[in-house]
Amino acid sequence: MSLADLREAVCEANLELNRRGIVLYTWGNVSGIDRESGLVVIKPSGISYDEMRPEHMVVVDLENRVVEGDLRPSSDTRTHTVLYKAFPRIGGIAHTHSVHAVSWAQARRPLPCLGTTHADHCSGPVPCTAPLTPQQVARDYETETGNSIVRSFEELDPVAVPMVLVAGHGPFAWGTSPDDAVRNAVILEEMARMATTTTILAGTPPPLEDYVLSYHYERKHGKNAWYGQAPSAPKAQGDGTGRKTGKV
Amino acid sequence: MSLADLREAVCEANLELNRRGIVLYTWGNVSGIDRESGLVVIKPSGISYDEMRPEHMVVVDLENRVVEGDLRPSSDTRTHTVLYKAFPRIGGIAHTHSVHAVSWAQARRPLPCLGTTHADHCSGPVPCTAPLTPQQVARDYETETGNSIVRSFEELDPVAVPMVLVAGHGPFAWGTSPDDAVRNAVILEEMARMATTTTILAGTPPPLEDYVLSYHYERKHGKNAWYGQAPSAPKAQGDGTGRKTGKV
Amino acid sequence: MSLADLREAVCEANLELNRRGIVLYTWGNVSGIDRESGLVVIKPSGISYDEMRPEHMVVVDLENRVVEGDLRPSSDTRTHTVLYKAFPRIGGIAHTHSVHAVSWAQARRPLPCLGTTHADHCSGPVPCTAPLTPQQVARDYETETGNSIVRSFEELDPVAVPMVLVAGHGPFAWGTSPDDAVRNAVILEEMARMATTTTILAGTPPPLEDYVLSYHYERKHGKNAWYGQAPSAPKAQGDGTGRKTGKV
Amino acid sequence: MSLADLREAVCEANLELNRRGIVLYTWGNVSGIDRESGLVVIKPSGISYDEMRPEHMVVVDLENRVVEGDLRPSSDTRTHTVLYKAFPRIGGIAHTHSVHAVSWAQARRPLPCLGTTHADHCSGPVPCTAPLTPQQVARDYETETGNSIVRSFEELDPVAVPMVLVAGHGPFAWGTSPDDAVRNAVILEEMARMATTTTILAGTPPPLEDYVLSYHYERKHGKNAWYGQAPSAPKAQGDGTGRKTGKV
Repeated sequence: MSLADLREAVCEANLELNRRGIVLYTWGNVSGIDRESGLVVIKPSGISYDEMRPEHMVVVDLENRVVEGDLRPSSDTRTHTVLYKAFPRIGGIAHTHSVHAVSWAQARRPLPCLGTTHADHCSGPVPCTAPLTPQQVARDYETETGNSIVRSFEELDPVAVPMVLVAGHGPFAWGTSPDDAVRNAVILEEMARMATTTTILAGTPPPLEDYVLSYHYERKHGKNAWYGQAPSAPKAQGDGTGRKTGKV
Repeated sequence: MSLADLREAVCEANLELNRRGIVLYTWGNVSGIDRESGLVVIKPSGISYDEMRPEHMVVVDLENRVVEGDLRPSSDTRTHTVLYKAFPRIGGIAHTHSVHAVSWAQARRPLPCLGTTHADHCSGPVPCTAPLTPQQVARDYETETGNSIVRSFEELDPVAVPMVLVAGHGPFAWGTSPDDAVRNAVILEEMARMATTTTILAGTPPPLEDYVLSYHYERKHGKNAWYGQAPSAPKAQGDGTGRKTGKV
Repeated sequence: MSLADLREAVCEANLELNRRGIVLYTWGNVSGIDRESGLVVIKPSGISYDEMRPEHMVVVDLENRVVEGDLRPSSDTRTHTVLYKAFPRIGGIAHTHSVHAVSWAQARRPLPCLGTTHADHCSGPVPCTAPLTPQQVARDYETETGNSIVRSFEELDPVAVPMVLVAGHGPFAWGTSPDDAVRNAVILEEMARMATTTTILAGTPPPLEDYVLSYHYERKHGKNAWYGQAPSAPKAQGDGTGRKTGKV
Repeated sequence: MSLADLREAVCEANLELNRRGIVLYTWGNVSGIDRESGLVVIKPSGISYDEMRPEHMVVVDLENRVVEGDLRPSSDTRTHTVLYKAFPRIGGIAHTHSVHAVSWAQARRPLPCLGTTHADHCSGPVPCTAPLTPQQVARDYETETGNSIVRSFEELDPVAVPMVLVAGHGPFAWGTSPDDAVRNAVILEEMARMATTTTILAGTPPPLEDYVLSYHYERKHGKNAWYGQAPSAPKAQGDGTGRKTGKV
């Protein structure tokens, strides 16, 4: 994918975030990475969705230096680049302030896997980061936010759990592409909404049985995943990476 | 109804599910059955609603063999066929991941009948299935999901209670036709939403009195049901099967 | 107002109920009365909003006899006529199954006045009826529903409290006209929604102080009400009856 | 800004309140002030949003005398003028009955700062006023409402905390302009919605750490605020006053 195509994909993914109704004003940002060159394309800071065009996207390298673009990159850029460096298999990242995901992050609670909707998209609970210390905030808040996410994945596979809650802040989601990252951000909000409502009904609801969780996750994402259509099928949903998406 | 008509009805019912706003991405599926031939028409797996057309629908027999269609059928197909075999009077089935119905399923609670909105459409509580065992999941998850639903109806009439909650998963609803099944899926979500809110207000709310429940159910679905219009009335809602629908 | 105008007003008020998003399918009904002739115009039973036209409206007298119209009147007609007979100053009635009002009715709780939004439109708590006895249901359910509402107003002015919750069922609202009744049904749902959320935050929230309640109610509905515009003002909201409406 | 421009800005800000979906019927009002002349432009009382045009706006002075306009000003006008006199740095005020902000006001609870969404827009908890006494209500309810707000800010900077909850009533928000005031009213509703959901999940959730709160607030509003774009950037969000707005 050329850098021009990536600009377009990142711009489109930012607009999709808005169309899905999970951002208010400009409260979200999506980026994508070209792994060959190590360049990251990201939304500029504070630009309205109404006006956003591919040429507004900012190109930075993994050391956060602006390589192309007249606008300032998103102020969360350093968090994105930490994740790209730590998670070499991801191709896009989306950050939002969607209400239910933020609420779990504000409650400082990992999102438990309570049902197959969650299991279809994420292989276990969504972790919640530890709060930053005053020293971390003073040193480099955005970079340390990225580091706290990475520490939450020491024993987790970020491809199987493509999302996180940052304590007191909100969600980050990622995927094989900017578009896939946005899809995971939308799905995380729905998973969180279901978990909130289930909490109202059951206090501390029972987690989904492990063997159902892995069955559901594997039928979508495992080696022998069989839902969805073969690549040649007309209009099948997928991202062209071999990782299948969409619910049957 | 010809198979071509059934394809169109099933496609339209899937699109209606989306228009009613109770599915995210492709998280739902609707089927219909031609009882004469025993053929089932069902949504293909993972096809976007934007692109869905009648010719994409897949035809299977009651042993889950694809009879017509180039695409893979919904991965929940085996659950649908179990229900068609066990419930000979139903003509369509809809499965969704709508938020409130899923939340009751995740809380593993049957949906109590708390008011006349519920009683107008369902003759008692909506059952919640027992969880599957590891053996059942390993043997044939989708078929066993259907079996667990059927077991929940051992003492219930699936025409009078046209919906179920699958524990840790979500709702299935059915009806005389694909369109009627979708209507019941939409109504189940509304019943569940009301029950969630009532739970917030009353903890364990009192069930609707039995004699009010049966009065409401009978005035819509009983032998002498009198609401709605006579069949010849212009544009009266109904499904042509003699079972009247719609609220007065 | 001629009967033809009333048909149009009642049809339009039913459509407005739908546009405001507080009815699902055909779950609502609105009527209006011509006090001179004692004739009531009401929505027919089970007709879709998409198809509804003034000529579908049914005219009945206060003894529930159909005077004009080929369709069956709403099955709740007898409840409406009881209210028109008992409350001589009202001109329209709206019945819905809106989620939050239904939830308070299902919780069997009167809606407390917790703030000025409520006080602007209703001079105190919204009563919740007593449940019907088996004898009342057997005798004439719809008429007895009306009677139970009337009993709830023995010590209340139905003009100052233009709404009620029927236990285990849902809300009825009324007003000077069909349009005003719909407005009160919409406002009741919003009042109920706020009360639900306040209950989440405060358990048993404090009622609004009496002297604030009466101040707010009087500035809108009292003899010296001063908000809104004089009758000659362009496009001022009002219903032409001298009772002012709308929030300042 | 000429008075004609201010009329247009105030009219547009009132319409924006409606477009954002946080007012029902005419339940909101926005004003703006021309600090040079001391004249306040405010929405007229009870005019429908559908019909609202700049020439309907009413001009009053700080003593609440109508200077221009044929319509009656909003009945909350005296509350607005109290705030303009007490808070000399604000240029616009918005009042709504948005559901979650009203619910916190009805629960008589200040809105705690639980996360960075709040911290990005408000430098600490949103205060809730003390209830008015019977004497205050009898004397001059609207003026005393303004006074109670001002008392809540004795130790707070109204630029850093641009919003308040009036006990038993609802929110007022303000800003550098009518448009900025509306933006803060919309954001307050979203902050309140998140805090409601967090309360469901965590009972009494932990407040955001002070050092994260001030970091987030300062990066947007401090002397060295760096998010958003430089003034010359195309389409950057901002209000031309040097105070930057929008989320990165």
